[in-house]
Amino acid sequence: MHGAAPQPTGPMDQTAPPTDRAPAERPQIMTDGGHQSVTFPDGLALECGTVVAPLTLAYRTYGTLSPGRDNAILVCHALTGDQYVAETHPVTGKPGWWSRLVGPGLPVDTDRFFVICINVLGGCMGSTGPRSLRPDAPGGSGGTPWGTDFPPVTIHDMVRAQARLVTHLGIERLFAVVGGSMGGMQVLAWAALFPERVFAALPVATASFHSAQNIAFNEVSRQAIFADPDWRAGRYWETGLVPARGLAVARMMAHITYLSEEALTRKFGRRLRRDPYNQEAPLSLFGEMFEVESYLRHQGSSFVRRFDANSYLTITRAMDYFDLAADHDGDLAAAFAGTQTRFCIVSFSSDWLFPTPQSRLVARALNRAAANVSFVEIETDKGHDAFLLDEPAFDRTVRGFLSGCAEHAGIG
Amino acid sequence: MHGAAPQPTGPMDQTAPPTDRAPAERPQIMTDGGHQSVTFPDGLALECGTVVAPLTLAYRTYGTLSPGRDNAILVCHALTGDQYVAETHPVTGKPGWWSRLVGPGLPVDTDRFFVICINVLGGCMGSTGPRSLRPDAPGGSGGTPWGTDFPPVTIHDMVRAQARLVTHLGIERLFAVVGGSMGGMQVLAWAALFPERVFAALPVATASFHSAQNIAFNEVSRQAIFADPDWRAGRYWETGLVPARGLAVARMMAHITYLSEEALTRKFGRRLRRDPYNQEAPLSLFGEMFEVESYLRHQGSSFVRRFDANSYLTITRAMDYFDLAADHDGDLAAAFAGTQTRFCIVSFSSDWLFPTPQSRLVARALNRAAANVSFVEIETDKGHDAFLLDEPAFDRTVRGFLSGCAEHAGIG
Repeated sequence: MHGAAPQPTGPMDQTAPPTDRAPAERPQIMTDGGHQSVTFPDGLALECGTVVAPLTLAYRTYGTLSPGRDNAILVCHALTGDQYVAETHPVTGKPGWWSRLVGPGLPVDTDRFFVICINVLGGCMGSTGPRSLRPDAPGGSGGTPWGTDFPPVTIHDMVRAQARLVTHLGIERLFAVVGGSMGGMQVLAWAALFPERVFAALPVATASFHSAQNIAFNEVSRQAIFADPDWRAGRYWETGLVPARGLAVARMMAHITYLSEEALTRKFGRRLRRDPYNQEAPLSLFGEMFEVESYLRHQGSSFVRRFDANSYLTITRAMDYFDLAADHDGDLAAAFAGTQTRFCIVSFSSDWLFPTPQSRLVARALNRAAANVSFVEIETDKGHDAFLLDEPAFDRTVRGFLSGCAEHAGIG
Repeated sequence: MHGAAPQPTGPMDQTAPPTDRAPAERPQIMTDGGHQSVTFPDGLALECGTVVAPLTLAYRTYGTLSPGRDNAILVCHALTGDQYVAETHPVTGKPGWWSRLVGPGLPVDTDRFFVICINVLGGCMGSTGPRSLRPDAPGGSGGTPWGTDFPPVTIHDMVRAQARLVTHLGIERLFAVVGGSMGGMQVLAWAALFPERVFAALPVATASFHSAQNIAFNEVSRQAIFADPDWRAGRYWETGLVPARGLAVARMMAHITYLSEEALTRKFGRRLRRDPYNQEAPLSLFGEMFEVESYLRHQGSSFVRRFDANSYLTITRAMDYFDLAADHDGDLAAAFAGTQTRFCIVSFSSDWLFPTPQSRLVARALNRAAANVSFVEIETDKGHDAFLLDEPAFDRTVRGFLSGCAEHAGIG
């Protein structure tokens, strides 16, 4: 027990656990432009061999940590997500990316659980990443961003960084780790790296490795960014421009992979969109746009206002590197040997980016490891994005799993 | 009967049918840098209302036209294909794109049939397209290419242009029209526009309309080209540069859609590729490429050497416009009302770009039109590209269908 539970906003110095480290090495906590963050001066040793120091992690919390510190749920975000899971996003002004699922009375109930969401290592919403100033660069920390010199990070690195912050918050064991897509990769990595720190794991619409097709899509995304002359080999901050066109193309392409053919047909079909500058003109096939084109262009242009191109490169790479079985000679079950964590694996029937067979592979490996696992495929035509959208069956699954686990854990 | 049958190579003046048009309007035939072509001075009226004149069509023929002129098979090429269907490509030096299927003794047997393949209107291998010089531009035909001023063309326009050439070759009725992907769209359009001129139709891996998902992928391709500053709003010929980076990204993305997840996994999986400039370095996850990335980069860079960016824009648009039922108030069966053509519809089980249900839709419409139709789904894991690859069951289907139809037609 370390005094009062952390509150959602404001400096959290008083909740930090006692430390006997020298003052210079003590984590420094600050709220900076809406980014609540902790900085670890000694940094983190990455899998590639580089030490990134200092390590700053920006995060948000919702709800109240119980006196027993046993009700914490870590929510892990996806490729282009961030820590603003359940509140208005400070840049876009839009609702949090999982505000449908996380909040008072919702399936991830912040009246009951203490929810933490951390911007991933390599991200661009306050955590250390390519946009961070490089301390060893000429001019010191007032100088140059890392840019493409930022070392390659892995999903495991992201999780080890998160574990530092969770410890810092005085939480030994997380009640649950929850996340979709790349967030689900983090859930699996948490369960594999820190089994004793995860009571329940809920990996959604994810896989234990990134497939050749997904690597291929990521590579085209990266090539689109490289192709933009404003990218300037990653040193775009020197001109004050960003590789907006390349990043928009990357986002547009990725966005198609998040939806199903059925969803695109249902939402847009072959409908044409009237020229907004010439509403009087008759709707004609030639010279008009299909609605789906207009939608994609909007997706591309709004994305570049909130996301950093070098972060996109770093994080897509991290996804591509991910292969949990490879750490265990190809035996995925060995990654979970002896685990006591309770798992609920969720996939969506029309998700072709992380199709159900990839989730089934994880469920089978957990079965081989004699783990406590349930596996749910949600019938939907919404594709990969279903985990972010209104899916009552998914909501019920999350609520039911967390409630059942809370009962077993004897909390709340 | 119009004298000797056309031969595969050389000028074909002597095979042209008699004409009573004024000399200036007579089609002019030439072989230009390997492009066998016919020019129609009066051009073609397009669906958008523009007349493109003159209209040049580059084509190749294989085999011998029978004295009865009843053994001609028109092969229609796909988006990035061209007329070099069964011989070494003059630019790439690679075998013709369907040399596996078309040739002496092959399923489309050039010992038996006279095969014609025409570069599509809007293409860049000798037929009139955005790269053609614009006769009405300042400087006349020695002046400026059409570029993005080239009018929008449709699949129907492509087919009407082909019909001109087929007539010019003295062929009233084609024994068969065969093609895959966009080539299959042309087959369907032929059967709908000129039912009395098509004895047999073999549309492969195609659809009667372009889906929202496919429009979306095409749009991202186009945005990748637009994003390349070397595109210069389509006037790239002014600088002597081509938008190579944008076009390569477009091709890389499209190429993923041509393969299945299974095919990519089988071919590449997560294998790493050693740095060709540093073969001594240990193979490591960081700093290496996945093989699939290297493969895609090669696909992108080799494509830009043979394809014109403005043609890519024009032809992808033509595919997007395609919706055969829309011409008949949404009733696809009406497009084929009263048809006497024999159809064989072929799809591939792992093709997610033109999935089997889209072929089934065509087959059902033909059934409603009381047409003679068979429908074959080939089991394969090779995805959309299967129609270009070694698929013995597909070869057998083509051979069987053409042989059966030849028997009914009383030829060969």
